[in-house]
Parts: sequence; C-alpha cells; structure tokens
Amino acid sequence: MAKYAIGLDFGTNSCRSLIVNLETGAEISSHVYNYPSGQMGVVVDPRDPNIARQNPADYCEGLETIIAQGLAKAKAADAAFSPGRVVGMGVDATGSTPMPVDRTGVPLALLPGFEDNPNAQAWLWKDHSSHAEAAAITALASKMRPGYLAKCGGTYSPEWFWAKVLHCKRVDPRVFEAAFSFVELCDWIPALLTGNGDPLTLKRGVCAAGHKAMYAEQWGGLPDKEFLGALDPALPALRDRLYETAYTADTKAGGLCAAWANRLGLREGIAVAVGAIDAHMGAVGAGCAEGKLAKILGTSTCDLMVAKNNQPLKDIPGVCGIVDGSVIAGYYGIEAGQSAVGDIFLWFVHNLVPASFGASADAKFAALNKAAEKLKPGETGLLALDWNNGNRCVLTDVRLSGVLLGQTLHSTAPEIYRALVEATAFGAKMIIDRVREYGVPVDQVINCGGLAGKSPFLMQTYADILDMPMTVSASDQTCALGAALFGAVAADVFTDVASAQGKLCRIREQAYQPIPANVPVYRELFALYRQVHDGFGTAAWCGQMSNVMKELIAIRERQR
Amino acid sequence: MAKYAIGLDFGTNSCRSLIVNLETGAEISSHVYNYPSGQMGVVVDPRDPNIARQNPADYCEGLETIIAQGLAKAKAADAAFSPGRVVGMGVDATGSTPMPVDRTGVPLALLPGFEDNPNAQAWLWKDHSSHAEAAAITALASKMRPGYLAKCGGTYSPEWFWAKVLHCKRVDPRVFEAAFSFVELCDWIPALLTGNGDPLTLKRGVCAAGHKAMYAEQWGGLPDKEFLGALDPALPALRDRLYETAYTADTKAGGLCAAWANRLGLREGIAVAVGAIDAHMGAVGAGCAEGKLAKILGTSTCDLMVAKNNQPLKDIPGVCGIVDGSVIAGYYGIEAGQSAVGDIFLWFVHNLVPASFGASADAKFAALNKAAEKLKPGETGLLALDWNNGNRCVLTDVRLSGVLLGQTLHSTAPEIYRALVEATAFGAKMIIDRVREYGVPVDQVINCGGLAGKSPFLMQTYADILDMPMTVSASDQTCALGAALFGAVAADVFTDVASAQGKLCRIREQAYQPIPANVPVYRELFALYRQVHDGFGTAAWCGQMSNVMKELIAIRERQR
Repeated sequence: MAKYAIGLDFGTNSCRSLIVNLETGAEISSHVYNYPSGQMGVVVDPRDPNIARQNPADYCEGLETIIAQGLAKAKAADAAFSPGRVVGMGVDATGSTPMPVDRTGVPLALLPGFEDNPNAQAWLWKDHSSHAEAAAITALASKMRPGYLAKCGGTYSPEWFWAKVLHCKRVDPRVFEAAFSFVELCDWIPALLTGNGDPLTLKRGVCAAGHKAMYAEQWGGLPDKEFLGALDPALPALRDRLYETAYTADTKAGGLCAAWANRLGLREGIAVAVGAIDAHMGAVGAGCAEGKLAKILGTSTCDLMVAKNNQPLKDIPGVCGIVDGSVIAGYYGIEAGQSAVGDIFLWFVHNLVPASFGASADAKFAALNKAAEKLKPGETGLLALDWNNGNRCVLTDVRLSGVLLGQTLHSTAPEIYRALVEATAFGAKMIIDRVREYGVPVDQVINCGGLAGKSPFLMQTYADILDMPMTVSASDQTCALGAALFGAVAADVFTDVASAQGKLCRIREQAYQPIPANVPVYRELFALYRQVHDGFGTAAWCGQMSNVMKELIAIRERQR
Repeated sequence: MAKYAIGLDFGTNSCRSLIVNLETGAEISSHVYNYPSGQMGVVVDPRDPNIARQNPADYCEGLETIIAQGLAKAKAADAAFSPGRVVGMGVDATGSTPMPVDRTGVPLALLPGFEDNPNAQAWLWKDHSSHAEAAAITALASKMRPGYLAKCGGTYSPEWFWAKVLHCKRVDPRVFEAAFSFVELCDWIPALLTGNGDPLTLKRGVCAAGHKAMYAEQWGGLPDKEFLGALDPALPALRDRLYETAYTADTKAGGLCAAWANRLGLREGIAVAVGAIDAHMGAVGAGCAEGKLAKILGTSTCDLMVAKNNQPLKDIPGVCGIVDGSVIAGYYGIEAGQSAVGDIFLWFVHNLVPASFGASADAKFAALNKAAEKLKPGETGLLALDWNNGNRCVLTDVRLSGVLLGQTLHSTAPEIYRALVEATAFGAKMIIDRVREYGVPVDQVINCGGLAGKSPFLMQTYADILDMPMTVSASDQTCALGAALFGAVAADVFTDVASAQGKLCRIREQAYQPIPANVPVYRELFALYRQVHDGFGTAAWCGQMSNVMKELIAIRERQR
C-alpha cells in the first residue's frame, strides 16, 4: 500500500502544500494559501522602499489551512489515500527570513506590545534595509576573516541573516533585547510541527545557516565571538543563543507533535525533516545531481549545483555560496544566480513594447516570442548585457547597469527582445564557465520555474548558447516536491536523496538540444559579450572596443 | 516702393516658392508642388533599395506651378505687390542630384528612347547605388590625390557626383554615351530660367561643385584628367564637357529669359542667381555668419559654418566638406552633420513606445517631451550613442551602431527618450569641439528645420550641453528664404549677403540660454560620452571602461 509525504513550501506571497504518492511519484493534491497581511503578504513601509516584512500569524494560519485542505483534496482525488498513510513531511521557505523569537520560540510579533511593530515580524528575504550593515560585515570580514567571505562570493548581502540582525539591533534595540534568539522561517515551521520551539535545541538547517549566516564546520559553526564582537558588542552573547550545529535536510527534525497530529488527523510522530531554503529544495525536486545543474528561472534565477564533498573544492570567486550539505548530504551545495532574468523581459514588455504587439503583457510576450524565434542568431546585429539589476554572479557588483548595443534605425522590439534573452543566456554561460573552471562538472541543465515551461524559444536559445541539452522539470512545484522528498527520506522510505529522486522527479518529454548551426555563431557572439562584460564590469580589463560594432555588423550580414 | 524676390526650393518630395518683400522682410506668399512621379516624388526600384531617382518632368511642371501660384497668392495677400516688382530669383535644390543632359542641356529622360529609363533621370541625393564607385574613388584618391579627400572629411560618398557618374557609365553605357554632360539640379533650374542650357556655358555653382564634385581652385577646378583617367578612361573627355569655373550664389547666372518672363508675367532680364544646395542656402536664410553656426535639424542634421577666406584654414579631419564660397562669397563654407537625429527619435517612438503614452506618434512625442523635460540632467542614469545610422562626423564611419547604457529595471520610455536627445546633443558637441580646435569660431547656434520649432525641451538640452545660446530661425522656410536672398543680392538690391541677412533674416524671440546648474553636470556626462564614443568608434582608443556605469550611478544619485 502506497505511502505519502507532504511538502510544505513557504513563498513570498503565499504558502502551499503538495501531497505526493511515494510509490508512483504522482502529485495527488495541492493547496495554496495567500498571506492576508500587507501587500500580497509583504508588509511594506511607504517611507522606506527597502523594508519588506511578513506577519508570522500568516504562517500559522497558512500552515493549518494548506495541510487540512491538501488532505481533503487528496481524499477526493485518490481513493487509496488516507491521512494515516502520510509518513513524512518536509518544509522549505524563503531565506534568509529570520524572526526574533522569545525563549520558547514564539515570534515577538505574536506577543503583546509588539503586534504592530514590523521589526518584531519576520524579516523577509528581499528586505534591503540592512545595506549599511552588510557593507560593514563585508569590510570587517575582508580584513579579519577573509575565509568567511570566500564561501559567499566575496560580498555579504543585505538580504542575509547577520545584516538583518545587526540592523534590528541598531534601529530597534527594544526588539533586539526582547529577542532571546532569531530563527529562520525554514527552521521555525519544523519546530512548530514537532512541538519543540526551544531556540537552543530546535534543529537548524545547514542550508540557511551556511548560505546566509556564514556557518561552516571548518571554522567551528557560526562566526566566532571575536569577529561578532567587533561588529557589535551585543552579538557574541547572541551567538550562545543560536546554534552550534546545523543539519542537512534529510535529517529528521523530530516527530509530528500530538497537538498538530490531532488537529490535522495525521499520525503522531511521523517524520518532519529539517528545513531548507526554497530554491535548494526546488533544485532537488527538479533532479539536481552531480553534473546536472538545476536552474530556477523566474524574475531572477538561482543556479544550484552539487559536487562530492570527499574531495576538496576550491573557493570559486564570484559564486554566491558554497555550503557542505546545503542541497544534498555528502555534497557541496553550490549556489549561483543572476539578479534579473524574467524581470528584464517584464521591464521591456511593460515599458518599451507598443500596443501593436498586443493589448496585454501576455499577448505582447506571445507576439515577441513568435517573432523573435524566427530570427537567426546574430541576425539582429544586437548585443545586450543582462545587468539591469546589477550582476550577482560572477562580478557580484550591484553598481552595474544594462547595455544595449548595435541598434539601427530599423531595430524592432522583437529583435531587442531576442537580444535580451540572449544576454541572459550569456550571463548563465559566464556562471557555468566559471564553476567548470574550478572543477564542478555541468553536463545538463534542468530548468524549472514559470519561464522554463512557458517559452520554448527561451529554452532553445539557452541550449544553443550553453551548447548543452536543456530539460524542463515535469513538476510545476519543484520546491514543494523537494520538501515532500526530504520528508520521505527523513522517514526512511528511501535510503538517500538520489533514490528518492529516481522515483519522484521527472522531466518533460520535450528536451531542447543545441542546433549545430547556431552553436558556432553564438560562440562568436559570446566572445563579444565577454569582451563588453569584462570591459564594463572589471577594473582589470584594459583594451580596445572598436571591433565590437564591426563584428556585430559582419555577423549580421552573414546571417541575413 | 517695395521690391520683391522669389526663392525657389527643390526638395526631395516637393518644390516650393517663397515671395519676399525686400524692404520689410515679410514672406508674403508661398506655394508647394508635390512631385507626381514615383513614391512621393522619388522613383524607386523594388529590386534595389539603393536606387532613388527623380523625373525631370516634375521639375518643369513644378517650376511653372510654384511661381505662377506664388504670384497669384502674393497679389491676393499684398495689395502693393505686382509681378513687375519682382527683381530677382534664387534657386536651391537637393544635391548631389546630377542629371545626364544632351548638348543643349535637355535631360535625357525627356528625350525619345529614354523616357522609361531611371538611369536617364535625375540621380537623387540619397541614391546609394554607387557605393562601390565611391569606395574606388576614396581608395584611388587616398593613394594619388590625398588633398582631394582632405577637403571632404577623408571619404568620398556614394551620394556624390563622380560616384554617380561613374556608376552610370558602368551600369548603363548607353545613357553615359548619350549624355553630352551632367548638370546638378541646382544649376539646371537657373539655366532653364535664363534660357541658357548649354552645358559648356551655363553657370555652375561652387557649392555643389566643391562639396560634391571635388572642385577647388587650388588644384585648378575639377579633379585632373590623370586622376579621372585612372578611375575610368571615359572620364577625362567628360571633364572637358563639364566646367572650368564655378560661381558663388551671389553671382547673377543670367537674366530671366523672354519665354519664362512672358509665361509668368515677370519682367524679362531680372536677375536669376547661381544655384546652390538647399542646406547651404537654408543656412544663409537662417542667418549663418562667422561665429554663428546654422543647424538644420531634421531626420538628420546639417551644420553649416563659415570662416573668412583671407586667412588659411587647415583641413579638419572628420568634417564633411570645406569649400571656398559655398555658403557666402569670401568665406570658406564648412559643412558637417549627424547622420541621424530626428530619425532616432522617430525610430524610438515608432518601435518602442507603448500606447500608454498616446495613440499617435505625435501624441507620444508630446507625452515624452513633457515627461522628459521634468527630469534633471543625469537623473536617468542613462547614456546613449547617437549612431543608429552610423556616424557622419567626426568619425565618418557607417559601420557603427547605437548604444544605450545604464538601464535598470525601472528605466522608463521618457528617460530613454531623454538619453537619446542628449546623445544627439553630445554628437553635435563633438562636431563643434572639432571645428573650434581647428580655429573656426562658434559662439551661437541658429537652429532651423521642423524639430527646432517643435521641441523647447530639445533646444534647452542643446543649450545646456553645448553651453551656448540656442536661437531658432523665425522662418519656417529658410531654404527658400535663402534662395530669395541670393536672388536679391544678384539683383544688386543689397551690396552683400550680410546686409541682406540684416534685412531679411529673423530669429524667434524665445532664445534658449544654458541653465547654469545643468552645464557642469553635462560636462561630466559628456566626458563619459566621449569615452564611450572614442572606445567604440576609434581603433586608437585603448583603456578601461569600468568607471562608466559607476559614474553614471553616482551622478544619478546626486541628481535625484
């Protein structure tokens, strides 16, 4: 008789459940809960656009709703299903999304006196109010502990744990002092489900710890007290109220507590896995494995790769993070990504595409894709850089901006759209070239996220430019699928992640193979992209640019 | 009692007359005749987009219509006017627009056996079919007669006289052999009016001769026979059937012949001035004088300057042409220009501006101007190069293309429009900086052409970037006004061009002064433009580019 697992995915605007048949891999039900607070779940501040918080009450309400409704739908969809057959649960969430909590793990925002204070809420991943603190951490670490930075691409981000905690201390000492500890959302949900909110003993995931809080076994866990004290005298004491050890997501965080079991009709004690960040579990749900890069294609992208941890892996300059076990136990998890991909296309369509291409953004996208895919590589004569939102990898520089080059009096919107798509593929190639250079194998890209399924033109362009097969995950909910998978592994239904992936992860039948005629043309264009990329993006570059336009014109004339 | 002059302006799609009161400067009547042949007056060939010809019959029909209708309207508008008070006529036309003619000056296209042959028609200025011949002329001259090229910016254009004549010889020897001579349109109309069509004696203007046919007194007129013979063995003999001397436009080409006088009701023998190219007469009509650059702002621009010819003027690299007397007798006429200005804005509005800015191109322009002028210099964070149609000055390179740099996910259409306007102003500044460097004074810019009157935002931006007052010609028909002015000077109503300009040329009351706060910001931005311009545009440049985006962001942050 089939067993089932539940994946719980806590996103930016909503949370969702997914119930998976562990024998067939079938996704039998799902339920989405939209957070009611703020603007689409995000608490903002009209005076400061950097602020982005979430109301922890939304998580509690959402958690119960998505499980209960998911179970109800599962019963309706699958006669063989009953809640008693659920053997494990896994949780993923956005991150770094830390919450200040009291001694028992209750978020301050849920306590009297803090209800209306956004600083007592969850500090959502995209909160950018801590940029000064991030800069201070980067500056201090580059002097005192360069090793800390080497594992996170050389720059500490305002989106990450310590910057947020430090900013909280500076702008709202009352909240900071009332906080016994800070807990990442992906760790807090399993703590809630297992009935162990004690910040000193609840199991923290190595994924958020390593990628966001500079945790690594090689230097004894979190950053040392000397370093933290140099940042702020209050931080060393906080370190003692955080954690010494962080765990991989195949670890059982605990058994489902009686209270939640009763409330939901699930069996008490079933495995609840240690949590991880959504993209990382999404990568596992997509089929990420050695040689198989999982690319989560959305407004921005996240590229996740793994490399066996039984051999040394050098620091890879310009790559966002390398954390042992953050994706799959026994492997280094390597995270990279582009700060804008879908966002560039959205910007273009919303700001620069005339009504002749359609009345709505969707209609415009359809028309642009249709027209752009009829063009040959290089036929546009255009070259773009994908830096409209800075460059996350491999330059890690937010003070960069977009470039479009080669336009004539005849350049059309579909041609420019094609150049923008190509630019994002060239940016993706920069990342893959860099990790390969440092010994990480990449033979195939498994794409997931909205864009991957919607645009065959985009996928074919990526195949041609990366000169690799592009596959697309069959699941539209790879994050929740990955969470369910870890719940099943934590429940010992599978011996390891790889065998669980063999059963649960599928790719779509249609794969995109590089078109042989396109590959060499794109190789030429990439050399020009690389030249302009290095020229505008690095202080080390020194040379000439006068070949660029001439070569673009020559390629255009040849291809037309 | 007031005297009057008639200006006749032969453009690309139409010709027009303008009747001017020489005492008050009032423009009392005007009439436009749209050429009936081809597409809006241009005979094209669907098999070859380079071909652009005109039917000489349109000129004859147009000439009679615009004078007759102009006179009729003048009578209606001004009771004091009578045709007998017209004392002179002047003619301007597009150029180089040469026609093959027979021994008596009749265009071959009007003769039996050639009626349907476009090669026997007028070869319109923008005909680009002679690019191979132009390249051959440049190559030969740079070896044999580098001095010829030095006066025309270093490159002979497919739009010019010898390239067209040579192409005619190569593609249609029958036409070439039937042609006794070739006559520029601006010379042919005065010949017609004075009744002297003899190609050997009709007075040719130094403007077209010097700017388009490599005529200069310093080397004895047209290119020498050795050079022409090296181009093609048939050319030396043709040289004998062209002209030895070319004249400034204040010269009387002859008196109005009896036939035309009777037909139109004008007095026989009134002065008909030597013709010139439209932009050059337009510059004079706008008020061009030493220190006052006349800028004809249209789809492309033409910048005309003068410098006294009693002192030596060095060759100015990258400037299209320097010809003694081509604008005003006694001065070197210096022609420069940008290959696309209004065309870039049209391209942007037609291809990249959403319907939210307006339903029509005009509405979109109005909305863009309104939004763009609210921004401060540098506030967009954007920088563009104005090379969508290559660069005519100072790089003289058609194989260049547009650049837009600095875009974010928030960049809007008005911001990009502003950057494009600024780019054309930076391009204008490159030209002015270059001519100043070679000793040509420029203290003020007098703008004319459609764009100058329509966009105060554009004019203010030019004032700020060029750091000079921008004035706008009061006349909307400066070419025809300049032609009338030369008719009056040839009739000895004025002693010279300057005194005629004092009476006839006016500028609009509203002048644009540089805004002091904007000037230093644009100086910083121009330094970046210059860097990117030299980097992408010259093989000599070698350096770094990594400062560009950082500085744009720093300026943007300061200005916001």
